[in-house]
Order: sequence, then C-alpha cells, then structure tokens
Amino acid sequence: MRMYDIIAKKRDGGELTPEELRFFIDGYVGGRIPDYQASALMMAIYFRGMTEGETAALTMRMAESGEMVDLSSIDGVKVDKHSTGGVGDKTTLVISPIAASLGVRVAKMSGRGLGHTGGTVDKMESIPGLRTSLDRKTFFEIVRKVGVCVIGQSGNLVPADKKLYALRDVTATVESIPLIATSIMSKKIAAGSDRILLDVKTGSGAFMKTVEDSVRLARAMVSIGERVGRRTVALITDMDRPLGRAVGNALEICEVCETLKGRGPSDLTAVCVELAASMLCLAGKGELDACRAMAIRQIANGEAFAKLKEMVAAQGGDTSVLDDNTKFPRAKVTREVLAREEGFLYAVDTEQVGIASVELGAGREKKEDAVDFSAGILLRKKVGDRVKRGEPMATLCSASEERCKQAEQILERAVVIQSNRPDAVPAVHARVTKDGVEYYE
Amino acid sequence: MRMYDIIAKKRDGGELTPEELRFFIDGYVGGRIPDYQASALMMAIYFRGMTEGETAALTMRMAESGEMVDLSSIDGVKVDKHSTGGVGDKTTLVISPIAASLGVRVAKMSGRGLGHTGGTVDKMESIPGLRTSLDRKTFFEIVRKVGVCVIGQSGNLVPADKKLYALRDVTATVESIPLIATSIMSKKIAAGSDRILLDVKTGSGAFMKTVEDSVRLARAMVSIGERVGRRTVALITDMDRPLGRAVGNALEICEVCETLKGRGPSDLTAVCVELAASMLCLAGKGELDACRAMAIRQIANGEAFAKLKEMVAAQGGDTSVLDDNTKFPRAKVTREVLAREEGFLYAVDTEQVGIASVELGAGREKKEDAVDFSAGILLRKKVGDRVKRGEPMATLCSASEERCKQAEQILERAVVIQSNRPDAVPAVHARVTKDGVEYYE
Repeated sequence: MRMYDIIAKKRDGGELTPEELRFFIDGYVGGRIPDYQASALMMAIYFRGMTEGETAALTMRMAESGEMVDLSSIDGVKVDKHSTGGVGDKTTLVISPIAASLGVRVAKMSGRGLGHTGGTVDKMESIPGLRTSLDRKTFFEIVRKVGVCVIGQSGNLVPADKKLYALRDVTATVESIPLIATSIMSKKIAAGSDRILLDVKTGSGAFMKTVEDSVRLARAMVSIGERVGRRTVALITDMDRPLGRAVGNALEICEVCETLKGRGPSDLTAVCVELAASMLCLAGKGELDACRAMAIRQIANGEAFAKLKEMVAAQGGDTSVLDDNTKFPRAKVTREVLAREEGFLYAVDTEQVGIASVELGAGREKKEDAVDFSAGILLRKKVGDRVKRGEPMATLCSASEERCKQAEQILERAVVIQSNRPDAVPAVHARVTKDGVEYYE
Repeated sequence: MRMYDIIAKKRDGGELTPEELRFFIDGYVGGRIPDYQASALMMAIYFRGMTEGETAALTMRMAESGEMVDLSSIDGVKVDKHSTGGVGDKTTLVISPIAASLGVRVAKMSGRGLGHTGGTVDKMESIPGLRTSLDRKTFFEIVRKVGVCVIGQSGNLVPADKKLYALRDVTATVESIPLIATSIMSKKIAAGSDRILLDVKTGSGAFMKTVEDSVRLARAMVSIGERVGRRTVALITDMDRPLGRAVGNALEICEVCETLKGRGPSDLTAVCVELAASMLCLAGKGELDACRAMAIRQIANGEAFAKLKEMVAAQGGDTSVLDDNTKFPRAKVTREVLAREEGFLYAVDTEQVGIASVELGAGREKKEDAVDFSAGILLRKKVGDRVKRGEPMATLCSASEERCKQAEQILERAVVIQSNRPDAVPAVHARVTKDGVEYYE
C-alpha cells in the first residue's frame, strides 16, 4: 500500500477502505508518512468529503492510536458529554450533577479555555482547593462513590488527533465537517463512556455559524457514534448570544450554583434542562418528556446542587464558596459599561464578548497563558432587553483598569442597540439522533 | 503575509495576487515555507485551478528563482521548442536543423529519457563522440556559428520547479493543467529564447490522453508565454501510436537521418514539416503555408541534413555514422515479434511500447539507470497495416535474450489486431496560438 495512491484515490472522489485509513493513521503517527503527504490528503478530504463509513473507520483508528480508557470496572451506564465550545457555556457543571443525582455515571475529561471560548477545567479550578489532575484510580473511585467526576485531559489519549489537528491548523484544513467530527469523536470514544451527548453550539459565538452547518456536524458525529456502538445524541443549542449572564471562571461557578438552586438565567436553565433530559434519556431513565420533568425536579429538590457539592468536596474543593458565593476572591477592579443610546439590545457579537473576557484575564490567547479566576464579565442586559442611555450594560471584572478599558472598547463595538425588539431565538434549535433531525420551535 | 492565509484564499476559490505568489515561491525555495503547507496549496490549486493571470505570475516568479539564460549576445531570432514527451519522438533533431538551415537560431536545452518516454540528449549521445555537456560559452559559440546546438539541461535553472515538482510527484498533485503549464513554461522562459514552439502530445503514449486536455494545456502555456512577452505557438500532435518506426536511441538517430534525406516514415515527416513550419513562422520567415513549403524544400535540397551534420560535428560527434547508419554499433541480440492472428493492426498501447523499449535497455526506470544506445524497437507494422499470421510485427534489439523475451510479452499485450481497418488519425490535431485554437482535419 502506498500513501500516494491513497491521496490520489481521495482526490479523484474514491472511498477509502478501513485498511487504507489504518495505513494512513498508523503510518502518520509512527512517523513513516510525512506531514506533506498528510496535508495533501487533508486538503483532498476538505474538497471531496468522506462517507459515513470512512468517517467512522478513520475515527476508530484515531481513537485506537493511544490509550483507550476502560470504564468497565464502574457499574452503571456511563454517559459523556461534549460541547463544541462557546462563551459563558457552563452547562457541564449543571447537567452532570443533575444526571449523577439520578444514578447516571459521568466520568468526564474536560479541556481548558483557549481563544474566545472558556473551558470547564478552568472554571472548576476557580474553586479553592479543587484538583482536576487526578490519577485514573482516584478518578474512577470518585465516579463510583459520587457518580460524577470531572478532570483535565490526561494520559496519551488520541495522539493521532493531536498530530493531525496541529497540521490541519497550519494548512487551512480545519474547516471540514467530517474531519471536525472525527477529531471530536475519536477523543470521546477513547474516553470510554457508553453513551455520548453532544452539544453543538451555533451562532456568532460558535465555531459553526449557521444551524445548517451545526446540524451537518451533529449528524456526522451521531453517525460515527452509532456506527462504532456508542449511542449518541446531539442538541444544536444557541450561541448567537452568550449563555447566561456570567462569562469568566469564578463568575460562572456562581451562576452554576444559582442555576442549580433554581434561580439561574432562563436561557441557561432552559438549555441545561434540555441537555440533562437528553443525558438521562440516553442513560435509559425514560422518555424525553419524563426526563425533562426529572431534571427540573432534581433542581427544585436541591439534590442536583447537593451532588455538585459532593463532587467538589471529593475533588478537594472548598464547598463553602458554593453555599456563599461572596466568599470567592473578588476582582481588584470593576467597571460598568454604559449604554450609549436608547432602545433594545438587538444583537451582540458573541465571539467578541469572549475576546473581551480574555482581555480581562479570564482566558488564554496562547496555551501557556495564566488565567485570572476572578476576571470576567457580568452581563446586566441580555439581547431583547430594553436599555436606557447611560444605563449599565455589563460589569467588567479584572486585575487592572487598563484591561477593563481595552475590554470595554471591544464590548462597545460588539453590541448593537436598535429601536425595535429582536425576534426571540430558541435556546435549543434541534435535536439529532440516529433516527434523524427534530427541529424545535 | 502568512502562508496560511494564501492556502485558505485559494481553498475558498480566491485569486492569488502576484505578491502572494512571490511570497510563496520565494519562501518555499528559501526554506521558510515548509513542504506541508506547499502541498496543501498544491492540492487546493488542483481543485480550484488558477486564472491566466495567476498562472503567468507564478511561472515568472518560478523562472526567476534561479539562473535566467541571456541569449542577447546571439544575433537573430532565437526559437525554443518543447515536447511534452512521447514514444519515438525524435522531432527536435529533424526540425532544429531545418530551421537553422534557414537562419533561425536554436539554442536548445533538452532532457534525458525517464519512464516510458525518451529524451533528445540520450538520442544524441548515441552518436560516437558527441558531447551534450557544454559550457555556456561553447554552447553560445556553436549557436552563433552553426545556428543550432542542443545540450543537456545545466546550471541552476528554475530551482523552484525542481523542488515543487518533487513535492507534487509524491502528493498526487502533478495532474493539474495550470501547474503542468507553469512547470514547463518556467523552464522555457529561464532558457532565454524569444519565441517558443510547443508540441503537446496526445493519446495513449502521452501524458495527456485526450485532445481536449491537450488543448487545455496548450492554451494555458500559450497564455503564459504571450503574457510574459514570449510569442508562443503550440501544436497538438498524435501520440496514440509511436511516432515513426524507430523507438530507441541510435535507431531513432537513423530515422532522423532518413527523414532529413526525404525517406522518413510519412507520419514522422508530416509532424516534422508542421512543427518546422510553425517554428519558421514564429521566427518571422513568412506565412504558415510558405513556411511549410520552405521546410519541405530544405529536406529535398539536403540543406537540413547538412545542418544536422554540421551541428553534430561542432559538438564533437562522428558524422560518418549519419552518412552510413550501418556504422552504428549493433545490438547483441535481435528478435522478431510475430503476428498471432490475421487482420489489421488496429491499435497499439503506445505507453506500453515505451515500457517495452525501457525493458530492452533503451530507457530508464530511475534517473540513475544507464542506457543501452543500440537497444530498442523497430516497428515493422504501423497501425492501419494489414498483417498476416506469423508475419513480423516488430524487431526487438537488446543486449540479452531475456530482455527481448520480457519486451515481447509486453508488446504482445499492447497490440490489438482486428478484422476491420481502423479510421485514419491525423498526425496533427490542432494548432493553438494567442488568437485561439485551429483544429486540423
């Protein structure tokens, strides 16, 4: 078998066999196939796409390129969850305790924030004492005992994706639906859970800007999961505006607590109830409607919040900050962003809100950057709200006045105030299962 | 400027500016742009193509990446000629003496054979004593004195093409019309002639298998030449069957002599007269019809053959073998390939004939291979000829029986004998100038 022939076959629109995809992945990870042949194949895939069979075979071989986490020693149904990334997306820390409080096992590895999107691991580490670097044994023990544990990615998971993604990143071949699907799903499969819930964000703050593209990506990922024997469901949720009111690590933990206490922002609560319902449904807890009711009940009766505290305690975190959010360290400087005109907050460039939060210190431009847990943005006005001239739109939290000023400029360019009220947008656009797409509204 | 943005722009169907193409070529040749980005761009160009402006700008920058031969010290119009390669293609050595005998200057650098196609330099070196490695000064002096000199490629001509072609060769990005045009024309432009005659071969023995593709390639090359100020004309000539009867170096030199003595095979003579006429016309010697008559006259009056001998002598070759072809060293072994059935020689897979000649020792599979000048094939039957069972179809010449047997097997699979006579095919299919395409027939 020759890599040249594999490139030429894909270039000419042919379907690669599992053996050819295995030859490519093994050869590339093993250093026998050079970057320049891999990048030519990636560009050919960009133009020609891949069939569902090719995508699943490539994903499986990538997953098998490194450690495959074995969760079989943990009883019960293990459900994993992945979000394609957004601004103010703290849903993992809301829905995982809801599901775990009903007996679902959530053994989750999460990422750190990079660029305009935040990461669950950073948010968790804003809780004093909490550790996200746990060995496999401790990780498994907490899942067994508490039902849920969220740690940072560790071990040699999917080296093929690390190497290939780094190459795609510099050769303009990231934006390919089958390749994105392959990258995400190979990591989910290697992480070992039985069932997978996907949250595909859509809109100005998401990687996928349109519902159509998000549905395409969701379908590709659900197809992979089902083909390799992992039941998979995807929700297409809105990221055309920041989710909730808090953007920034400790600020978002406070909002998680509020939401689990039944006092969260309505958009965040709605998305979390839908995600939790789908997670419960995936775990076999009942029909979707029944699961929705269960999720709402676990918030109302306080069991989900209790489960969050149990998890935080098990991971060494100080739970008193969860009961009393005023105990979180405060940012040195705060600054109000005032409305320059009167009308309705009509739209907000959500990616720019994320970039403003990075400017404040809440995120990273480069992997090596440190994060300021207390930094971030509290949105005082949400899209659709009426605003008066001079009224506070957002509160900025940071370590310096300079950072606040920079962020304020970004934010002012990001918001659109108009005299008319914008149409309401659903928090969830669609649900994708192996049976097809169900559009909400 | 970033290479990433250049790749993404081409991927999305944009037109690259001359500055962007310059940034790419200079960076790639200078080692600042890695192979994996160059191959991604090549694959994007494969799918998106290039405009005529992009193609010309890329060609010019490639030509300028190394030595640009300056022929201005040689008086008169300098015309270069390039063939895309075929089997039995010895036209350069027929038409260059015709043109030179009428005062046209031909300062030509030629290649060696590789794969199934032969090379002019190998053919010339089958003449005892003849040297094709000459320094620039000697090369120029011979052109000034004799009017024609053909040497091997030397110097640091178009390093950008060397590096890029080697990359395309292993990343399945060779088969792109604008990239092929760019590769050929960058070398012709660097070689310094004022006018360029292109012979684009078409058919089973050519790189381009269809007339349509050949015309597309010819148009792309003519467009480049005209855009950078070099008058360029292309003929699309037939390579669906071997040209003439001789395939192999010394055998082809004998056929060159026969053709210049007015006794050549009709297909070869026809193609050479058309090519020579276009070359004379390019050099400003008159209208095409008049140039055709001139070419025929220079064969009939012996002046073209005398010019060939003059060039061979100037390059140190023994001209006595040209007057008496029996003085060429003979192959050790010859073998007749006999017809297995009765009918008409209906078709021949010309690429396979080339491969059989390599098997006999007349060509190279790899660059390092040595060539046996006396080896090759003499075709006793041409497509369209009636054949009787047991009648000789071809004579094989080689250094060993084993090679002859191997070649015989290839040749037997390459010929098709049928009861009906095939339609006649024109030797020249079309002529492409800046004014458009003129189809023959």
